[in-house]
Amino acid sequence: MTDLEIAKKHSLKPIQEIAQKLGVDPEEIEMYGKYKAKLPLHLIDEKKLERSNLILVTAISPTPAGEGKTTMSIGLSEALNRLGKKTTVVLREPSLGPVFGIKGGATGGGYSQVIPMEDINLHFTGDFSAIEKAHNLLAAIIDNNIQSKSNSLGIDGRTVVWKRVVDLNDRSLRKVLIGLGGTASGVPRETGFDITAASEIMAILCLSSGLEDLKRRLGNIFIGYTFEGQPIYARDLKAEGAMTVLLKDAIKPNLVQTLEGNPAIIHAGPFANIAQGTNTVLATKMGMTFSEFTVTEAGFGFDLGGEKFFNIKCQSSGLKPKAVVLTATIRAIKYHGGVDLKNLTESNVKAVKKGLENLQKHVENIQKFKIRPIIAINKFISDTDEEIKIIEEYAQENDIQVAVADIWEKGGEGGLDLARKLIQSVESEPSVFKPLYDWNSPLTEKIKTIAREIYGAKYVDYSVKSKAQLKRIEKLGLEGLPICMAKTQKSFSGDPNLLGRPENFSITIREIEIAAGAGFLVPIVGDMMRMPGLPAHPASEGIDIDENGEVIGLF
Amino acid sequence: MTDLEIAKKHSLKPIQEIAQKLGVDPEEIEMYGKYKAKLPLHLIDEKKLERSNLILVTAISPTPAGEGKTTMSIGLSEALNRLGKKTTVVLREPSLGPVFGIKGGATGGGYSQVIPMEDINLHFTGDFSAIEKAHNLLAAIIDNNIQSKSNSLGIDGRTVVWKRVVDLNDRSLRKVLIGLGGTASGVPRETGFDITAASEIMAILCLSSGLEDLKRRLGNIFIGYTFEGQPIYARDLKAEGAMTVLLKDAIKPNLVQTLEGNPAIIHAGPFANIAQGTNTVLATKMGMTFSEFTVTEAGFGFDLGGEKFFNIKCQSSGLKPKAVVLTATIRAIKYHGGVDLKNLTESNVKAVKKGLENLQKHVENIQKFKIRPIIAINKFISDTDEEIKIIEEYAQENDIQVAVADIWEKGGEGGLDLARKLIQSVESEPSVFKPLYDWNSPLTEKIKTIAREIYGAKYVDYSVKSKAQLKRIEKLGLEGLPICMAKTQKSFSGDPNLLGRPENFSITIREIEIAAGAGFLVPIVGDMMRMPGLPAHPASEGIDIDENGEVIGLF
Repeated sequence: MTDLEIAKKHSLKPIQEIAQKLGVDPEEIEMYGKYKAKLPLHLIDEKKLERSNLILVTAISPTPAGEGKTTMSIGLSEALNRLGKKTTVVLREPSLGPVFGIKGGATGGGYSQVIPMEDINLHFTGDFSAIEKAHNLLAAIIDNNIQSKSNSLGIDGRTVVWKRVVDLNDRSLRKVLIGLGGTASGVPRETGFDITAASEIMAILCLSSGLEDLKRRLGNIFIGYTFEGQPIYARDLKAEGAMTVLLKDAIKPNLVQTLEGNPAIIHAGPFANIAQGTNTVLATKMGMTFSEFTVTEAGFGFDLGGEKFFNIKCQSSGLKPKAVVLTATIRAIKYHGGVDLKNLTESNVKAVKKGLENLQKHVENIQKFKIRPIIAINKFISDTDEEIKIIEEYAQENDIQVAVADIWEKGGEGGLDLARKLIQSVESEPSVFKPLYDWNSPLTEKIKTIAREIYGAKYVDYSVKSKAQLKRIEKLGLEGLPICMAKTQKSFSGDPNLLGRPENFSITIREIEIAAGAGFLVPIVGDMMRMPGLPAHPASEGIDIDENGEVIGLF
Repeated sequence: MTDLEIAKKHSLKPIQEIAQKLGVDPEEIEMYGKYKAKLPLHLIDEKKLERSNLILVTAISPTPAGEGKTTMSIGLSEALNRLGKKTTVVLREPSLGPVFGIKGGATGGGYSQVIPMEDINLHFTGDFSAIEKAHNLLAAIIDNNIQSKSNSLGIDGRTVVWKRVVDLNDRSLRKVLIGLGGTASGVPRETGFDITAASEIMAILCLSSGLEDLKRRLGNIFIGYTFEGQPIYARDLKAEGAMTVLLKDAIKPNLVQTLEGNPAIIHAGPFANIAQGTNTVLATKMGMTFSEFTVTEAGFGFDLGGEKFFNIKCQSSGLKPKAVVLTATIRAIKYHGGVDLKNLTESNVKAVKKGLENLQKHVENIQKFKIRPIIAINKFISDTDEEIKIIEEYAQENDIQVAVADIWEKGGEGGLDLARKLIQSVESEPSVFKPLYDWNSPLTEKIKTIAREIYGAKYVDYSVKSKAQLKRIEKLGLEGLPICMAKTQKSFSGDPNLLGRPENFSITIREIEIAAGAGFLVPIVGDMMRMPGLPAHPASEGIDIDENGEVIGLF
């Protein structure tokens, strides 16, 4: 059965019932159809946050074999609820574009899913569309100001870094020339489109503490320079009020349900390579307000999503995670051990032993934040006992908890062992979270700390361009912002081909982007894809509506 | 007080209450927050349509002075409800882009509004976003196919007429060059962006009879030609299934309320110059299923929205309107009589007498469809009795009903006289609607009929280009489609400066566009603006959120 077929087989409970289970008066929620709702921000209770155990689900360095962080988060949450711990899973919203490309949705898999999956994977409650509108409104206002005679700020179009966004895989929009067609139709300049998830507004929404803070951050968006070299921010164009209005509903977290009828909160979705890769602070706090355990995830491996979750999200919002679940599959570990994708179903103890080094490095990284990791092996049918034993032995030797979780096939039932170990770990010896660096350290110091401590790099090199940008950032007074490294997710290094645990490598900062609205700086290591393309035969060819009006062909 | 302030002063009733008033079980509706809902299509009952009186509200040729069709539709609907006639007003959704440009919303005005106006004017229930996504998905699929080696249809990029859309006033996107950046990022070609309301999908949605019909129409969208000269439709790219999935909720009409707490259905919004300019067939039928009177409107003057409402919408769906309300203001009539915009507040009997010819021509046009017109004078404070008397005398001499409606200032109370006359007219002597031309007439014959009968043109000229296109359309077998003239709304002629009732003019068909999905052909008379720009100081500068999270600065 496909994920969609499994999801459709489950009967959905009315969302008011889910709200009640969460502990929210159904009168308070704003419904979007019968099975989705928005939760008003006033429900968040800062006093209750301390009482909730915040659990981060992360993973080893991703491989084409798949790790299943979202599925693990959902399955673990179901298991905790089965054990009588009131738990809410808090996830990112899937991006629409990729649904029509190669893969299907991003709402878990098998018997660990959030539903209605076809709605969540499509427009959901309109958050991405609102972000897209707010982003492109600012772009239109910028080009309008460049065109204007009577209201001109003197923006030099060649310096404008604010592109446009669309939530589709549309490679032809990566680089475009706009403003053609004569004097009435704008000033020609080169620009491009990113996919909506890559918008700085996505990152901004995820870090905002409320509407006022959102507006302040939107006003801080850095746009470019005037011909005189003066920096221009969104506030100089008086754009942040209208942008905030466009986001007034998008800022509210969304409530849906898991297959087992537990509450799930899903809200926004920045990438973890070019941004912070985790859901909104407000969604996480909403979950924590109402739950004993709040299970959340951060994108890609711990070196990207996890590091940023701790150093950016937790530091900026005061959140204190209690444990980290490190998801791995035997298949992925073998891939890190050098096995080809087509041979991953064959048992290969040697490759597991070799690939284990990737997992080890992530474990060490988690421990640097004074947090206890728990290894969760996401079970596949092809896994052999000997292979699993290698991981278990490593864990035992290093006094780390480990559990095999069969949440894909069995839902919460398959995650009970993991859940029990997690509860025991959190209740017996609570972690005391400690960030890795001080935001007020010098800029290059912060970059070096992440590169050395987390990636294991020996040196950090800077391109000529990035050196000039370092100076410019200091001149703008932005050197106190935290670092959001843009690095390939496939390797600890900047080279996606270096699997396992590379050593003796250096990373090169090619350039540094300013995300002054989100409130971080983005050193770029390697080429980052911000606008995917469609494959020759896009998934859209198989997506359809059947005679009953039901969606088919989503996976 | 601004419209927004008036709207905010009214307390909103829960949308379930409005559904109940409409006659719909509250369990049936799909809520979008507390005050908006979608109505499932199965509620439409074709058997009940005959019993409802469908009233079209239209206007004289629009001027900068304003006519107020939407306000009149709402006010009339309130008045009919006050007189005990169960009435639903069915309107178009406002476009988001212009809200940030010069004008504010398009949800009526004064004490005749639909609410919550700030939501309806912003994202509403996401219909426009869904249309935008479906449109741009097809564009991405087209460019992906041009890029593809293994799945190529051999599309000649230079012939592709399918552009992209965004619901913003963004003049810099009118003409763009895409696919730059090397072999991995598409094939360079010239294209552009229209505002979302101008998308053919907007027109398609409005004419669809259900999901299956929607999918069929989406598949029929004409895209361009292969290098071998073969026509390419969306179905050749297997795009229509995924596009339909994106529109599965957008196809459902939206329920909101008027200021006086009566039901209002608002659904989609094509332009009336380049498209048919009226809400969906499904929304109109939804209103008629539940109401004695169903008041709806069509864009711009009767020569555009009205003619298309009758010849395209009513012919394709079998709807039979019972009366037409022709909205006019003394100010606009004076403007047609040659008075400058700045002098319109001064009484000018002579100018009213002169400008009346515009109204007269619209009256005659309505009568050509065997429908009885009622003139509704939308009252302004500056109107004098002498001026109004001229209209009344003309009406009396020609046995036409006329009423002064003060619906802006007084809501339904101000529309009682109009409503009484309408009821009397409909109940005493029902009109028998007759379309103006047969869809099966020859193409040039259909164009000539509209140009002569409705515009009053003497001749129709064809450019060399349009003559070639006529042949191509016949070769494609599309000559049986109805005509959707793209003409300036400002004049009966193709010249926006010819006010009043121009005579002895010819119109020139510059080119003919194929809207095979919507199911009509679009002869282009003059330049049509499909992507507005922002003014030097856009309205966005004043739009904001106050300390209570309330929207301010929308008008």
